Amino acid sequence: MKLQVRNPAFEARVRDSFMRQPFMATLGAELSAVRPGAVEIRLPFRDALAQQHGYFHGGVIGALADNAAGYAAFTLIRHEDTLLTSEYKINLLAPGDGDVLRACGSVLKAGRRLSVVNVTLFIEKDGTEKLCAAALATMMVLSNISDERKV
Amino acid sequence: MKLQVRNPAFEARVRDSFMRQPFMATLGAELSAVRPGAVEIRLPFRDALAQQHGYFHGGVIGALADNAAGYAAFTLIRHEDTLLTSEYKINLLAPGDGDVLRACGSVLKAGRRLSVVNVTLFIEKDGTEKLCAAALATMMVLSNISDERKV
Amino acid sequence: MKLQVRNPAFEARVRDSFMRQPFMATLGAELSAVRPGAVEIRLPFRDALAQQHGYFHGGVIGALADNAAGYAAFTLIRHEDTLLTSEYKINLLAPGDGDVLRACGSVLKAGRRLSVVNVTLFIEKDGTEKLCAAALATMMVLSNISDERKV
Amino acid sequence: MKLQVRNPAFEARVRDSFMRQPFMATLGAELSAVRPGAVEIRLPFRDALAQQHGYFHGGVIGALADNAAGYAAFTLIRHEDTLLTSEYKINLLAPGDGDVLRACGSVLKAGRRLSVVNVTLFIEKDGTEKLCAAALATMMVLSNISDERKV
Repeated sequence: MKLQVRNPAFEARVRDSFMRQPFMATLGAELSAVRPGAVEIRLPFRDALAQQHGYFHGGVIGALADNAAGYAAFTLIRHEDTLLTSEYKINLLAPGDGDVLRACGSVLKAGRRLSVVNVTLFIEKDGTEKLCAAALATMMVLSNISDERKV
Repeated sequence: MKLQVRNPAFEARVRDSFMRQPFMATLGAELSAVRPGAVEIRLPFRDALAQQHGYFHGGVIGALADNAAGYAAFTLIRHEDTLLTSEYKINLLAPGDGDVLRACGSVLKAGRRLSVVNVTLFIEKDGTEKLCAAALATMMVLSNISDERKV
Repeated sequence: MKLQVRNPAFEARVRDSFMRQPFMATLGAELSAVRPGAVEIRLPFRDALAQQHGYFHGGVIGALADNAAGYAAFTLIRHEDTLLTSEYKINLLAPGDGDVLRACGSVLKAGRRLSVVNVTLFIEKDGTEKLCAAALATMMVLSNISDERKV
Repeated sequence: MKLQVRNPAFEARVRDSFMRQPFMATLGAELSAVRPGAVEIRLPFRDALAQQHGYFHGGVIGALADNAAGYAAFTLIRHEDTLLTSEYKINLLAPGDGDVLRACGSVLKAGRRLSVVNVTLFIEKDGTEKLCAAALATMMVLSNISDERKV
């Protein structure tokens, strides 16, 4: 499907919204790439993000997938709209055993009301990267609703 | 389906494993109930867990769902086994706008190799609780594999 | 969540729509119960619906889940609206080895734009019924769009 | 991930198993391509497969996705093993309004116990094809279990 950019300043808007998510700072995640219909988020490992075996917690991997999906869709919405996650599904393909987690979100369909996004996640260890998880997510477009926090 | 307890000391083992997940401490989550085939996890809100509107981040809600599913299944495995999340799917039904998030995992099927778990999540605000999310998860049983971290 | 009936004649409308789905006749499925926010669909086994081991095909089980979800949500929409499946996820818990498959859809949330539905599927064999599958589905409400076929 | 063929005669075995699924004949589906880790299934439209608007029923689309996932994984298992669907999730991206539905399954991970498969579905109308659905599925490998029907 052809993807249409509705807000030429999409990158600045996506980066600004990402910065206003305290949970991304809590994780230590960084928005490493923003393109029309696609974003990449990187997250270095630290023990605070681990499950009991010392690997990235599945919930951290899911959270990164959710956000990569959300911001990939966000690149294609109008300036006056915002987004909410409707649902996501994630398959964990390999343990999150590594130094850096990388989530790549890529829009499959950007509808007026719903966007569907594919996410692929990689784990890097000692300079080698492998596929770690795959996700499929649905985002709901909220028309004429601010992305800013109500005061 | 009838659920069979294979390890009489399941509650102590579940609580011990939960305590060894640094990410649950990072979130501030508490394992508030452990029963055969079911657990409940509670998480008080704080800004570090928020998305841009100041509500619980969808990734936090997903992480809690994943863990409620995992430990509900964990109550029914043998002492010598452990579990890994295979996949989960979550529908967000209402914004995570509240003081406490509560995730209730309940096993639908506890197989020799896979367990399937239903999770219902509630958000409490000003003393009133409402349905916030629903999830369905698959856990893979790892036979004769320790739940402890390799040193 | 409280469920609100927006069309008092919902049962007739649901039954009429179901009858206009040729694929349900192809399967041989019957709408056995219609209540506010919930429907039940029954499907007797015949070899034409089997996979290679002679059980109900997983695709048949998924199709019944999809339809039970759709019509459960359909009971709660306005007379002038219709629905489309946005997505569904199904876990197969036991082989579809039996005489009758029964899918029970039950609405978790009936929103203005999206409805989320829980589906439980049972397989009956020799008079005993067991849990066979569980699904979670999202339906999109199409406002002011006819449920009838365009001519 | 590198995919390893464990049964050199995989194509004949996949085609034989597909032919033994009566439901695929009921639908009228054809296995149009078989490669290591990937298959393609085609299904011409006819009214018996329609929902109420006269398009491919979502349950038909899901059934094709399930089968494309299953047989993609089947190309990589050992001769003495078979497969069962554990779960699948499908997002419908465009109405199934067209002449031919095409499902392409492609293995993401072929594990000893579980395989995870990505499925992309296209709808062809008047010679033009468009993306119609996307699915993500988990298959369970059954070791040393025949794919044949018990007599």
